[in-house]
Formats: sequence, C-alpha cells, structure tokens
Amino acid sequence: MPHIVAIGGSDAGISAALRARELDPSVEVTVVVADRYPNFSICGIPYYFSGEVQPWQSLAHRTAADLEATGMRLRLDTLATEIDADGKRLVVRNADGSLHVISYDELVVGTGALPSRAGIDGLDALTAADGVHVIHSMGDTFALDADLEARRPETAIIVGAGYVGLEMAEAFTARGIRVTQLQRGPEVLSTLDPELGALVHEELAAHDVEVVVGAAVGRIEKTAAGLSVSGVRDGEPFTRTADLVLVVVGVRPNAELLERAGATLGAGGAVVVDERMRTGIPHVYSAGDGTVTRHRLLGTTYLPLGTTAHKQGRVAGENALGGDAVFAGSVGTQVVKVFDLVAARTGLRQREAEAAGYSPRTSTAAADDHKRYYPGAHPIRFRITGDVRDGRLLGAQLVGTLGTEVSKRVDTYATALYAGLTVEQLSELDLSYTPPLGSPWDAVQVAAQAWG
Amino acid sequence: MPHIVAIGGSDAGISAALRARELDPSVEVTVVVADRYPNFSICGIPYYFSGEVQPWQSLAHRTAADLEATGMRLRLDTLATEIDADGKRLVVRNADGSLHVISYDELVVGTGALPSRAGIDGLDALTAADGVHVIHSMGDTFALDADLEARRPETAIIVGAGYVGLEMAEAFTARGIRVTQLQRGPEVLSTLDPELGALVHEELAAHDVEVVVGAAVGRIEKTAAGLSVSGVRDGEPFTRTADLVLVVVGVRPNAELLERAGATLGAGGAVVVDERMRTGIPHVYSAGDGTVTRHRLLGTTYLPLGTTAHKQGRVAGENALGGDAVFAGSVGTQVVKVFDLVAARTGLRQREAEAAGYSPRTSTAAADDHKRYYPGAHPIRFRITGDVRDGRLLGAQLVGTLGTEVSKRVDTYATALYAGLTVEQLSELDLSYTPPLGSPWDAVQVAAQAWG
Repeated sequence: MPHIVAIGGSDAGISAALRARELDPSVEVTVVVADRYPNFSICGIPYYFSGEVQPWQSLAHRTAADLEATGMRLRLDTLATEIDADGKRLVVRNADGSLHVISYDELVVGTGALPSRAGIDGLDALTAADGVHVIHSMGDTFALDADLEARRPETAIIVGAGYVGLEMAEAFTARGIRVTQLQRGPEVLSTLDPELGALVHEELAAHDVEVVVGAAVGRIEKTAAGLSVSGVRDGEPFTRTADLVLVVVGVRPNAELLERAGATLGAGGAVVVDERMRTGIPHVYSAGDGTVTRHRLLGTTYLPLGTTAHKQGRVAGENALGGDAVFAGSVGTQVVKVFDLVAARTGLRQREAEAAGYSPRTSTAAADDHKRYYPGAHPIRFRITGDVRDGRLLGAQLVGTLGTEVSKRVDTYATALYAGLTVEQLSELDLSYTPPLGSPWDAVQVAAQAWG
Repeated sequence: MPHIVAIGGSDAGISAALRARELDPSVEVTVVVADRYPNFSICGIPYYFSGEVQPWQSLAHRTAADLEATGMRLRLDTLATEIDADGKRLVVRNADGSLHVISYDELVVGTGALPSRAGIDGLDALTAADGVHVIHSMGDTFALDADLEARRPETAIIVGAGYVGLEMAEAFTARGIRVTQLQRGPEVLSTLDPELGALVHEELAAHDVEVVVGAAVGRIEKTAAGLSVSGVRDGEPFTRTADLVLVVVGVRPNAELLERAGATLGAGGAVVVDERMRTGIPHVYSAGDGTVTRHRLLGTTYLPLGTTAHKQGRVAGENALGGDAVFAGSVGTQVVKVFDLVAARTGLRQREAEAAGYSPRTSTAAADDHKRYYPGAHPIRFRITGDVRDGRLLGAQLVGTLGTEVSKRVDTYATALYAGLTVEQLSELDLSYTPPLGSPWDAVQVAAQAWG
C-alpha cells in the first residue's frame, strides 16, 4: 500500500489528499499541517471580521473530523523542515520541538504563500502586539481579533487595495472602524482597468472609506499619536496616523522547502512544475500558491488563487496515485464583492495581452443585467479585450451592483476563453433569458457586440 | 438602393431590420407590422399583469420612434396577405381594408407563431368576451386587462403549466386571484425532469396555487356557476369552475403565408430554412417562431424561443443585405422565475438524448450557490446529462432560489455545449469564486463531478 504524504493543510494539500482517497480508498494518505487549522477557507476571513461569519470554526471547509472520516491521517502543529528526496523521507518538527521522519512513496508539497512585505521600512520590527497586522493564516486572524477586542481601535489604515484589502475595508467599516485605504497604483483594484477600478473607488468613498491612490508607502512607525504610515504621493510626502495598520499587499511563494530539496524556481520565485504538477524531483509534486501557474493565454506565470490551488492539488493527488491528470490551466478568473458592488475579470487586459505578443483591442460597454422594464435593473460596465488578427476573445472585465449576477456572468467569458472562442462567437451562444434576470441578447453578448 | 422588407414586428422581423440598417445605413428597410405594437416584449406580459411593469407601453424593447430613428420605415396595422415571389412583390391589407402592393428586393418573413388550442372542445366558440383568454399578443393583453378590470374575477383556471402558464399563475396570485393550474403531464414545467419540476410544483403550492397534474382537459363551457373546465384525470372525470380561464398550452408556427408562397414546411409545421435562413424561394428568408430551428445537438427541430428569433432575424437581415451569416444553432437554453424559484435548462434530457441516438446517462446533484458559512446560501438542484461513450456534455437542468444565479449558471453549461466540451472538462473551467457568491469548485462543477 503506497503512502502519499501531502504537506500543507490548505487548498492544494487537502485537495490532493482528498483526490487520492477518493480514487483509491485503500491508499495511505498523511497530511502534514503546520498549524491546528486544516482546510480553513482563508478567503472567508474578511467575513469573520465583518461579523457575517461566526464563529471562526465555521470557516472550515471541512472539520478535522470530516477529513479523517475520508481515511486520511492529519499531523497537526507539524512543520515540514526537510525533504530527503533520495531516501523518500520527510523530516518534520513536532509542536514540542522534536524531529520526526516520515517515509513517503509520493510527496505533494502545498506550502502555499507568505504575505508580502513590499519593502516597507519599519514593518519587520512591528508585530500584531504593536497593532500592525498581516492576514494570511488563522494565526493572523486570532491575533487581529484579539487586538480588536483588547484595544477597540477607532481608526485603521489598510495598506493595499487588492481583493483582501477591499474586503477588509468593508469588514472594518461594518464594525464601525474608520478606514483609510492606501494604494500604490493609480486606482484601487489594480487587477482591473482604472476605468472600472474607479467604480470600486466610488463605492468605497460612498461608505466613508478614505481612499488615497498613488500613495507609495515607505515607512510604518509607532508614535505617540498612534501608528504612523508615511510615504510619497505625487512627489509630495504624506503621512496618515491610525490606531491599527493592516498590510495586505499580496503574497510571495513559500518555496524554500522545495528549493532546498533541489526544485527549480521560476515565475515570481515559485516552484517550477510541468502540467502534471511534477517538480522534476522524483516522486515530488508541487501545487498551489507556492507553485507556478500554467495560464492558457500566457503560458507559465505566477498567479496564486484558491481555485487554481484546488485544481492543481486534485491533479497532483491523482498523479501521485499513478494517474495521468493534466492541469488544464488558469485563465485568471477573479471576482470580489465590495459593499454593494461586484467586480470580476477573466483573461487578459490590453497591456497584459500586448506584453504577451497578442494584438489586442479593448472596448467599453454598459448593458443592463435584465430588461429595464422589470424592477431592479442595473447597468453592468464591461471592458472586452480581443485580438484584432483573429478575433479571439482575450479577456473581459465587468463591474455591477450586487445581484446582477456579475460573478456567474464572468464565467461565460471564462468558459469561452477555455474553449478559445472569438468575440463574435459570444453572440452565437444560446444564453438564458427571462425578463427578471436577463435580456434576449444577454449583457455579456451586448458587450461583445460593442467590440466588433 | 435595395429595398429590404421584413414582415412581423416582433423579435425576428425587427432584428432583421435593425441588423440591415446597422450594417448599411443607406439601405431602405420597411417593416410590415400586423398590429400597432412593434417590438414589444411578449415575454414581459406576465409582469404587466402582476403589476411589476407599468404602464404597458414600457414593455416595448424600443418605441416606434426609436425604431424609425434607426432609419427603418414601419407600416403598422398592416397585414401581409400574399407573397408574389416571381414579381418580388408583397400584397398587404391596410387597416381600412384596402390592399396595397410593396415591391421588395429581399424579403424576411417573421410571422411568428399562434397560440395552440390543444383540441379542447368549446374553446373555439369562446372568446375574451366570455372570460376565456389566450395570451400571445398585445391585443390579447388588452382584452385580458379589460376583462380583469370589468369583472374583477376572484378565481382563474390556467390550462397549461409551461413558462407562460407558471408566470401567469404568479401574476394572478399577486393580484389576489385564486389560481387553479391544470397540467396534462405528470408534473409542471414539463421541459424539466419531474424530479425538478416537483420543486416548482411545491413553490406553486406554497403560494396557494392549486396544481392539478395529469389533467387532460377535454372541454370548456360556460355554466351558471362560471366557466367550467372538464376532462379526465387518472381515468376519472374531473371538473373545475372559475370566473376566468386562461389557455396557455404552447404555440404553433404561423407559416401559412410562406406555405402559400411555396415554402416547404418541416418540423412542427414550421418553415424549412437552411442555416443562412433561406427558404429556398429566391430572395425570401424566414426567421423566428414560424421557422424551424437548427439545434446543435439535434439537427433541425422546432423550438420557438425569443432568443433564437433574435439570432435568426439578425442572420437573415445580414444575408438579405448580401452577407454570408450563419445561424450557429440553438442548444435550447431556457429559464423561468416562478415566485422565489428559478428553473433553467440547456441541451438535452435523458429521453431526448436517447431519441436522438446518443448514449446518455443522467445524474442528480445538489450544491450550495455559495460557501455555506456566508449568510444566505441555498442549495441548487442539478440534473446533468452526458454521453457515456465520449463523455460529452449533453444537457443540464437546475433549480434554485431566486438570487442563486441559476440563470447565469446555466449559461456556463450552454457555453460548454456550444463548444462541445465533455462533462469532465467542466472541472477544468476557471470559474469565479468569492465566498459570498461561489465556491472554489463552483456548484456547476460539483454537479459535473457527481456525473463522473
């Protein structure tokens, strides 16, 4: 009976373990988990802080008992410290500091990512005890929670306005904390074009979040007045002071374990794998946020997303069992809810497509989510990118009011990208229509027709 | 300057005219409209009766003035009575009874469909003045409206439980009219499998609609007690009496004009066309509910839908102008809102697929619309049909609570059907995820994985 070992209790490691047990209930599977919180939905943490999700235990996709009921063994509070690939052995450190060796037949590494620190002076010296937080693990969550309870901060600075930063701005606002959001780029949610990011910016402002764009944060320090965040904006120095600082400026791959074992690092410093999630080290797979991403339009890149980690983990788990699964690739589909707005994208934007050698053109459109005569219709704003040479759809961005089905409308584009459809073919799709929920030409088709 | 004439003021005729004017603003376009209501959203009529849409004028996709502003000429209250294909002339009858001849270079016929009468005794002799209604045109709408205002009926029998019948049951209920809904088949909404139709049945019952399935209506008559609808159910006679009767048992193609001009009738008695919407009569195209439907999984069939009429009309309008557009085909995507439930389907069901020579298997699944820990999650019920020989997706049916994005989730399957994907490939799609609106494996993927 082979022994499959997965490192990492988050999406990739657990998906690999579940898939292996699903395909062969006789296989021995061990998951090595650095903390006590396997299979937690990290994406759900902002909704714990907003108060929408309580208690924190409900953030678990599955409980430890659920996971063990599938027949896998969990080793919690156990840190993988070294891979002996020749001996097919994994060295782990238990909570009491003791070392232990686990023999494996196949190893799936899903060590994920670590919060980026973006080269901000002073950040390394400040911790949750100082009121300066990152938010990437349940440990970070408990530390922030304790700080909120103990100090009852009235003001917070959020450094970063990506997905998590925006969700946390909403969460803090929901708790009555006044938020200042600092964004380095020209507009919030820089994964969208600024024309659409501006709609998210307006939504934040409408909920009394102070948004400062073009703000390059250089330093965080403790002062008598509170935590001071300073930097440069439009060539001028700026400073904001608040009771609490949250730094959410992206992640970097946690690839050190595999690097020491001889794996190659590639895009973004992530572990290089082939489409079967093989690292090149015999019997060692890598999946999830520590791993490069095969992108159907870009080739190999680094784009850490939970959806991708699930898929990569599933492929790795199947192949660890002797299967021949292939990770079909991401198209970079992402969505975020910000107060009463939903913003989504898939594929490439104009500049990304240019950089990748396409000949893109991007057009703007607006179309109602459903027939205007039926109550509650709202316009959805679109940006559609296609290749002028062959008409191929390259990407779509859309922003609409919560309830306009933006999150599942982007899936139509994502499916079209997967299948390699042209922008024109979107008009051939037989999409659903009823007046309360759509139009005879769905909004996604109206936007595509505007590209023509 | 060529003269393109379109017959029919609904989806197909207007789409053809709009497309021609869009492609060549110099072309002369005339649309012959039998009534005074061009480009009305027939699908929206139930929402007029529910009171959600007021006034009736807002049901127009575009006003007559909007249409004329595109440069087309409208001939309202004008009935096309004869096509002289050799002479490229159309005979029309004006409102005053006078005949008139219109010369055309290219003719697009979009005469649509007529309400089916399902062979019910007594129906032909009863009209709106008797309290017996059909609902297919604005004229029918005004007649029903006037009857509701004049007689204030307290009870209604709806014969039929398809899309319009269900929407009208909701509309009448919203106005305080007690509804009895009679359905010939074993379950309401017979376009879905009975397992899912039963959920719609429950929703109707929860809103105090009396649903009688397996009820073969044989006769409608006026009695002292009101309008009496009788027939056979489970081998036993049944009778229901109400103040008003609405018969909504489907439609039949209104193909007589083209048949007399020499067109061939095919599936369902509809006009046969090729994929360019050509009838075979030189310079004469047909589009919309009077026309056969190219179905990507079935070949040629009859499946009248507004979405298809728009697409067929657009193709006909482009080709009438000398273009070479092809109607890519329907996959039969449909959706309906019934009270707080949304039901959708695309592609084929088990028996339909068997009859078409596929080797289908159908499986059932349920999956939450978004992460259960976030408030407001609801299960969506699925039926997935795929071909066991090659794994190809053949169809999907889904029913969920209003707000679970069922109507745009079915579009992912519809897009997959268009592209010919397998059920397994659905798990490779990079669909959007955020906890309030989805899951790392979207519900549509969970359902597909259950098919495996």
